[in-house]
Amino acid sequence: MEHFKEELNNKVDNINKIIKSYLPEAEGYHKRIADAMNYSVNVGGKRIRPLLMLETYKLCGGKNFEDVYPFMAAIEIIHSYSLVHDDLPAMDNDEYRRGQLTTHKKYGEDFGILAGDGLLNLAYETMIEAITKCEDSVDFSKKSKAAGIIAKKSGIYGMVGGQSLDVYLTDKSMDGKQLDYIFRLKTGALIEASFMAGAVLAGCDEGVLDKLENAGNLVGFAFQIKDDILDITSTQEVLGKPVLSDERNNKTTYVSLYGMDKATEDVDTFSERAIDILKELGDNDFLIELVKSLISRNK
Amino acid sequence: MEHFKEELNNKVDNINKIIKSYLPEAEGYHKRIADAMNYSVNVGGKRIRPLLMLETYKLCGGKNFEDVYPFMAAIEIIHSYSLVHDDLPAMDNDEYRRGQLTTHKKYGEDFGILAGDGLLNLAYETMIEAITKCEDSVDFSKKSKAAGIIAKKSGIYGMVGGQSLDVYLTDKSMDGKQLDYIFRLKTGALIEASFMAGAVLAGCDEGVLDKLENAGNLVGFAFQIKDDILDITSTQEVLGKPVLSDERNNKTTYVSLYGMDKATEDVDTFSERAIDILKELGDNDFLIELVKSLISRNK
Repeated sequence: MEHFKEELNNKVDNINKIIKSYLPEAEGYHKRIADAMNYSVNVGGKRIRPLLMLETYKLCGGKNFEDVYPFMAAIEIIHSYSLVHDDLPAMDNDEYRRGQLTTHKKYGEDFGILAGDGLLNLAYETMIEAITKCEDSVDFSKKSKAAGIIAKKSGIYGMVGGQSLDVYLTDKSMDGKQLDYIFRLKTGALIEASFMAGAVLAGCDEGVLDKLENAGNLVGFAFQIKDDILDITSTQEVLGKPVLSDERNNKTTYVSLYGMDKATEDVDTFSERAIDILKELGDNDFLIELVKSLISRNK
Repeated sequence: MEHFKEELNNKVDNINKIIKSYLPEAEGYHKRIADAMNYSVNVGGKRIRPLLMLETYKLCGGKNFEDVYPFMAAIEIIHSYSLVHDDLPAMDNDEYRRGQLTTHKKYGEDFGILAGDGLLNLAYETMIEAITKCEDSVDFSKKSKAAGIIAKKSGIYGMVGGQSLDVYLTDKSMDGKQLDYIFRLKTGALIEASFMAGAVLAGCDEGVLDKLENAGNLVGFAFQIKDDILDITSTQEVLGKPVLSDERNNKTTYVSLYGMDKATEDVDTFSERAIDILKELGDNDFLIELVKSLISRNK
């Protein structure tokens, strides 16, 4: 376990360097917007999505790690933009994230909106640049397919769609089907995309892709249930953001719908199913430990 | 002139059909976000960018018009998202655009943010899908390059960058260099991208591309000066949005910096230069009339 943590920290350090290499220099007339964008990405975070993507690439036999870098950066940048916009006053109105001021609290609401827009666009600039540099049709096919998956899973048939229903149903009662849709899209979609993009870049076939989409769905679901649990059982010090926010916002959660016992049980069930899928596809102990750590986390 | 107007209306009708074919169906759990996105794009607008892209494609000898459609839709969708976010209370706080309620006034501020995000993402879903469908390396090279140009011109080195400095300098004094930067990026960048993407898709070389970038820059600049002039000389009825908003917001404009005479003169000078470039590159009378109409417009 100690060994895993050390390895994880090294990998996260490396991912931070990779992401940084795609972020804009803060200089000249675009200094302020670049500052706000860099701040939004650099406030930390567990870098789960790029980690999952790279480790899935390895699981599927990929060898040219640098091929994955722009897509790893892109998915984390997309995740970051979504947090910046979610935190805005008209959305969740959060002042802190990961123990630091949210982007709009630090740079103003206008720059919260613009930094999110700039980040979302940057993710695509980054992926499209990687595509334009392809030198053969196999490479082109893999990279454009990976970008297509990430794009689809980020839009209204993915993350934005889940977030939209979530926002729309705030203060309204929500049934299990709606909560399922929100979990599957809001959190699940980008985790699915991470698994799938890693596999596509390694050259996996459609069958493997479907299995990984399912695994990503299960991990995303377990992760989101865990989030609901931690909002009740954790503290602001540990979590780095206010707790009991769901109750305060009258939000239906997995815990409020099914109770704490079933929630805790389902986190385990779903993550075990995901792990079974991953083990069947190949050999990557670190990836298995990583998925386990997402579920046993306390923040 | 009457003939031009009729031709223009027909072309705009056709473009509206093309754009619509890329917009989401409003159904199921994503009905509301899809409604807000469709509303944002369908409130009208002059469809200048897709028009310019298609006509430049023709100017450069392109024959397969359908190749341009996803890129035409994408650039108009990007333009639409930028308006939705610009109109938000934390930005320009506009309640009307083109005589209709702005998206956040109709769907709420949260859905104003989300609809903008969904649209920006959709533009890239659309372009990347077009790229993944390419069947040969020439096609792939053209389309990924066109998407790359549009992406670059939409981000912080383009539209978002210009918008950011504009927002940052609101209520502050602004010099000619800063105003130039804002005009060049905020309005100019997407117009440049329209010319350039049309040319790239038609297979033009770098020399032509540079010239069209310059033409786009001049048209964008003239267009933005005209905007500043109309904000003073027009009425809400004609313009479809409140006038004298720049004065109300203490904004430095081309007119406030250089006076109405020079502003009026420069609109002509810049657009004539742009037209000279276009005439040099090929034969497309409609494109020339279109550029002229952008400048002589009264709304």
